Order: sequence, then structure tokens, then C-alpha cells
Amino acid sequence: MRILGIDPGYAIVGYGVIEYNLGKFCVLGCGAITTEAHKPFPERLEDIYNDLSFIIDKYKPDALSIERLYFNTNTTTAIDVAQARGVIVLAAQNKRLEVNEYTPLQVKQSVTGYGRAEKRQVMEMVKSLLRLNEVPKPDDTADALALAVCHAHYSASSYSKILKEAKR
Amino acid sequence: MRILGIDPGYAIVGYGVIEYNLGKFCVLGCGAITTEAHKPFPERLEDIYNDLSFIIDKYKPDALSIERLYFNTNTTTAIDVAQARGVIVLAAQNKRLEVNEYTPLQVKQSVTGYGRAEKRQVMEMVKSLLRLNEVPKPDDTADALALAVCHAHYSASSYSKILKEAKR
Repeated sequence: MRILGIDPGYAIVGYGVIEYNLGKFCVLGCGAITTEAHKPFPERLEDIYNDLSFIIDKYKPDALSIERLYFNTNTTTAIDVAQARGVIVLAAQNKRLEVNEYTPLQVKQSVTGYGRAEKRQVMEMVKSLLRLNEVPKPDDTADALALAVCHAHYSASSYSKILKEAKR
Repeated sequence: MRILGIDPGYAIVGYGVIEYNLGKFCVLGCGAITTEAHKPFPERLEDIYNDLSFIIDKYKPDALSIERLYFNTNTTTAIDVAQARGVIVLAAQNKRLEVNEYTPLQVKQSVTGYGRAEKRQVMEMVKSLLRLNEVPKPDDTADALALAVCHAHYSASSYSKILKEAKR
């Protein structure tokens, strides 16, 4: 199963593509889409849409895993992050890619086994699970890979549940 | 000048297209894009994107006028409204349509001349300015027309400022 993890944003969109088979992970590609601060906001949304569509065409993932948004602080930024997220979800939908969303708590729980894990611990687990030499930079990329890992775990557990039920 | 006013939302997107020339308004079309509540959210975004693109192709407006979002209450809904707004702005950008945004205060001020006007007064002024027999329904459509009128007034005042400066 090939999963595209996305950490949504309007200045930086982290992405990570992983292949997950029989409990083994392989990173196919990762990075960040960045948009220029001086550009009008509609153009930044267009850049995100086009770059993400290109990434989907390049890696042909089976599913998208994206962070669910909550607004606690800095609502002005949050509105723009949500607008960018809408464009990301649209790009996935237009490529007929299944969209899965996870809360930060689910990601931490799934990656480290502990919902209150520190950000640093999540990063280190991502590095270790994906057998990388170092924690990917920027943080948005590491977060995107964590989201992809999270979806792999959730899918695998639903799959094993289905298998168990089928065997009954 | 032809203006497309949009009241953003994910269940209902109000729209109104007006022609504004020499201080006179003419309504070319108005209505609401609605999305089905039972559909997955990515499909609802896709419907909004496609329907709005169709409306832009049909009426060929020169500019889009859309409400600026503020989050005060019900942040869960607000996130989804912002995601839909991102998709609306992308549709406009992809058609090379200029995106203008106004606050609710600017809309009230521009339509009624009074920033603290009641919603009902704004609706009645929209009806009167656009010489309609009744206030358009749903409210989202009337709000969209108010946004279009607001942009017409703002553009006209910038235009007359430019003319005055040119005459100096």
C-alpha cells in the first residue's frame, strides 16, 4: 500500500510518500511544497494545487493521510491553513485519491504508542521506523511522514481485524 | 463591470452576478450552489469547485467579491467553511478572475451607509438598489449580491479617485 502523508499549510506543505507492505516501510519520496510570501493568496493556493497534483501523478499513491485541523490559537493563520487544506483535499479528490484524516493525538499514539509523546519523540520514531539516517527536515516533512505511518498502522489494524473476522 | 459576489460555505454557497455601469445595477443571475450532507466532504468540495467554474464560464465576470472570514463561534463549522472558501478562491484563480475580499462591516457600510445596520436593512437595500421585486432567497444569495454591490461601490470610488487625481 502506497500512502501520501500531508502536513497542511499555506506557506509550507510537508509531504511524504511511503510504501507499506507486511509491516515494512519504504520511503519513496518526501519534501515540502513552499509558496512565496510576496505572492497574492489565490496564486499561493494555485501553486499548492498544481504542485500537489504533480506529486500525486508522480508517486501514484493509494491513499492520502492528512492532519485534522483544530483551532485554538492564532485564528487568522488558521483560516488560511484551512483554505489551503481545502485545496489539498480537492487535489486528492480530483485524482480519485481516498482522503483519511487523523488528529495529532492519533498520530502520536500510532507512531510512538503514547498520545502525550513529545514532538521530538515522534520525530525520532519516524526516523527509526522508516530507517532513515536522520530526522527529515523541515519539521513539516517529518510530520507528513508521521501521518503516512499513522495511516499505515490504522489500515493494517483494520485489515487484520477483517482477516480475524473472516476466519471466525 | 461585471461582478460575481460569493457568500462562502460548504453546504450552501450563495452567488450573485451583477453588471454595474454608470451607477446603475443589473442582476444577470443569482442563486445558490448546494452540496448534499450525506456526501463525503472531499466530494462536496469537488461539487463546489465544478459548479462555481461552470458559473464563471457562463457569466464571464471581471471580478469576484467574497466575504473575508472571521472565527468567533463554532470553530468546527468555521474550519469547513474556510476549506470551501479555499476551493472557491482556487476556482476563481484558475479562471484568472481577480479576487476581492470584504469584511461584513465593509459590506454593511457600503450597502446601507451604516456599519451597524441590521441584516434585514442590508437585505432591503440590496432589493432596492438592484430593483428586485423581493429579497432574494436563500439569505446566502442575498448576501452574495450584497458583496457584489459592495465591490461595485469600492471600485467606483477608486475609479473616481483615479479620475480626480488625473484631472489635477
